[in-house]
Amino acid sequence: MNNLTNEFLAKAKSILGDSGWSEDPDKLHAAASPWRATSQGETPFLAMPGSTDQASALVRLCADHRVALTPQGGNTGLVDGGTPHGEITVSMRRMTRIRALDKTNNSLTIEAGAPLVDAQNAADDANRLFPLSLGSEGIATIGGLISTNAGGVAVLRYGMMRDLLLGLEVVLPSGEVWNGLSGLRKNNTGYDLKHLFAGAEGTLGLITAATLKLFPKVAKATGWVICKSAEDVVDLLALVRDHAGDTVTSFEIIPANAIEMVTADIPDTRDPAPSALPWRVLVEVSMAREDQARETLMSALADAMEKDLADNAIIAESGQQADSFWHIRETIPLSKRAYGTAINHDVAVPVSAIPEFLKTTEAAIHKVDNHAEIVAFGHVGDGNLHYSACEPLGVSESTLARHADEITQIVHTQAMKYGGSISAEHGVGRLKRDELASIRPQAATDTMRAIKQALDPLGIMNPGRVVSMSD
Amino acid sequence: MNNLTNEFLAKAKSILGDSGWSEDPDKLHAAASPWRATSQGETPFLAMPGSTDQASALVRLCADHRVALTPQGGNTGLVDGGTPHGEITVSMRRMTRIRALDKTNNSLTIEAGAPLVDAQNAADDANRLFPLSLGSEGIATIGGLISTNAGGVAVLRYGMMRDLLLGLEVVLPSGEVWNGLSGLRKNNTGYDLKHLFAGAEGTLGLITAATLKLFPKVAKATGWVICKSAEDVVDLLALVRDHAGDTVTSFEIIPANAIEMVTADIPDTRDPAPSALPWRVLVEVSMAREDQARETLMSALADAMEKDLADNAIIAESGQQADSFWHIRETIPLSKRAYGTAINHDVAVPVSAIPEFLKTTEAAIHKVDNHAEIVAFGHVGDGNLHYSACEPLGVSESTLARHADEITQIVHTQAMKYGGSISAEHGVGRLKRDELASIRPQAATDTMRAIKQALDPLGIMNPGRVVSMSD
Repeated sequence: MNNLTNEFLAKAKSILGDSGWSEDPDKLHAAASPWRATSQGETPFLAMPGSTDQASALVRLCADHRVALTPQGGNTGLVDGGTPHGEITVSMRRMTRIRALDKTNNSLTIEAGAPLVDAQNAADDANRLFPLSLGSEGIATIGGLISTNAGGVAVLRYGMMRDLLLGLEVVLPSGEVWNGLSGLRKNNTGYDLKHLFAGAEGTLGLITAATLKLFPKVAKATGWVICKSAEDVVDLLALVRDHAGDTVTSFEIIPANAIEMVTADIPDTRDPAPSALPWRVLVEVSMAREDQARETLMSALADAMEKDLADNAIIAESGQQADSFWHIRETIPLSKRAYGTAINHDVAVPVSAIPEFLKTTEAAIHKVDNHAEIVAFGHVGDGNLHYSACEPLGVSESTLARHADEITQIVHTQAMKYGGSISAEHGVGRLKRDELASIRPQAATDTMRAIKQALDPLGIMNPGRVVSMSD
Repeated sequence: MNNLTNEFLAKAKSILGDSGWSEDPDKLHAAASPWRATSQGETPFLAMPGSTDQASALVRLCADHRVALTPQGGNTGLVDGGTPHGEITVSMRRMTRIRALDKTNNSLTIEAGAPLVDAQNAADDANRLFPLSLGSEGIATIGGLISTNAGGVAVLRYGMMRDLLLGLEVVLPSGEVWNGLSGLRKNNTGYDLKHLFAGAEGTLGLITAATLKLFPKVAKATGWVICKSAEDVVDLLALVRDHAGDTVTSFEIIPANAIEMVTADIPDTRDPAPSALPWRVLVEVSMAREDQARETLMSALADAMEKDLADNAIIAESGQQADSFWHIRETIPLSKRAYGTAINHDVAVPVSAIPEFLKTTEAAIHKVDNHAEIVAFGHVGDGNLHYSACEPLGVSESTLARHADEITQIVHTQAMKYGGSISAEHGVGRLKRDELASIRPQAATDTMRAIKQALDPLGIMNPGRVVSMSD
């Protein structure tokens, strides 16, 4: 825990102004409580800077007093990266301004504390698209999404958050401001600092604003496809891309048991096409013209059925029907079983390795606990699976919790065996820091430590996340 | 100049084997001679490692003996980044192997010394697309293109070289190898090191191999459009994107005087549609289905003519005709005047600022030299213009050369005034290092120096490029 002096507190309060700080125990507790209650923390002081100048002065004060800070956006992360554990909290939620939108240049400059939905809406109002989309988009902030290099459901076509970034404004650990906001598409003028701050989880600097890429709006055709095997799912992806090129914007896999789970747990959901087969694919083709998108998806799915890669396929007749498909996909993580007694993982493997990964991992887990129900869903087009081992309904005595560590080790070992990753989109935080240090090549960890030491020699920026500096 | 000891030379030769080194004065001279003869250098020793192990052992030897090295690919760079000036040369040209191609995963692992065309061909053979494309693609190597974060003619849709990168293998300045080769789309497991090495121009490590993203193949519709003003060109871009979304893969501007120049200088070229109007646009729409691409481009251009944004438009009837359009575009830099007495720049401004930038910059240059002929061409969809002031034909006494520095200062000042960049895609090297240090925010330069010092404390990796460490 930071020992905050009266001098520090007085200066911090004077920098931040009356509405810019809190020592109210309830607010401090809330700031230290992550969205999904994964890891309760604690914090002695909540700072809410209202401007880049205030943020800069505050970080300079922290550097002078050797006070560690945790930058915080929506606190929706899943790896214990943005929750303070003794650090003061620097919440960006008061900095939500849209600073500029250039329609012709397809760029939007927005402050770090704005929720993702604000960027989506601003783009939409200008007849443009900001394509990042994920379950927590009403709460997760731009700064947090950049700091964790968020993924979501349109990565297949538009990439991760870092790929949508044109420029950044960052308060460096010294308190100095780097104004790297820029609407330029091309700017080869030295090391690409924005890519270093993106994904650094607040350990190298405090992001205060960003310039984001906008895209032309697109019309979507959305399909729901039933497949008999994971091999067919992967082959279907290739087939759809043969027809539609990279206008395939989403390709999500949903297992039949997740649909059962969602329709049981979440009101107003129903299975659009009940079937005994094990897999569904939610596929989206996005083009400037709706007729072309629809026609392209339709001919792709007809071809898939002819080639026996799909048992059945529905194309949504309306935006409402498409939304109902997506609602099922998006509520899987909220469904009770998935986040009650489930052991969850966020892995990636090369797309080509998915069928084999699914088969061998399930077999290995069933050797440890033959009741465990596997729910593997997510962004199969990116090779990214949210892989959970769940307690089956109606089991009287739970054995799953006892095997949690063992199961996680199996899933992670399997992912690495196929050249994969144990943190595809959720990041490192404190949760996966030490495991990753043992998995990652030593040369990479050493290089990361050298960068952290060079940029934050006092170790005040979100210490202990991403890489440990203490050994 | 490095002082190489006999011990160093003996050990280097033993590491590299008979075919892996040269001290032949002609070969040393060639290694120090850049493609476009921009900056003759010198080098005491040419190393040509045949494997990552050899490259690693060589760099370790250099570190032990404090011998500076310049990594070299095709030596086609334009900013004096890959030409040795006293350093030993580490040419990657012997490392050209394709290590893996995964069609289902859409990834290609290839060694750093392979020319770009090898990656394009390997992708093509697998019915995939590697989209990076630029004039020097037969010579420029994968490692050089990554180190300079190359751009080219398809950035509008596919991004720069760094955007096409999935993983890297790098020999660090200590000689240690970081194996970051990976076919994963998503991998949030710490600072993104590949983005640090990409664009670092060999100053942080020696790239030995890369895993690249492949894309579905696309069919193209190619148009040649005549416009009466730069404003209309920018509006035409927006209009075409309204029709075609981001299937617009190229949008290149060509001024009428460049066409005159090319058709006069380059055999077998002719103006596809002579006109007195000042601008041409080469536009490409790429979709999975050729009929859709053609129909979309056709309806966009018909709309443009109706709205008076285009005076005339031709859609190529064949691949051959499309190639003839591209041939004009690609030979502008080779045309005599553009690279004889021309003063060349590589600037970017936000797309919305292009018309104003063109107008005010030309006026400012004409105040200094009212004969200067402005040739501004390039990737207008990315805001990137190759902006040259040329000697007009038939001028008996040249005044341009005398004004070179002044003209460059005007172009760069103008670019910065519009929030632009003085090195959009060519990089920094030695040529723009000091100018950029004075233009870039001090916080950015300081951060770059801290990174260089942390990762290459001995200063042996391509010293003096990107950032100066001596002041």
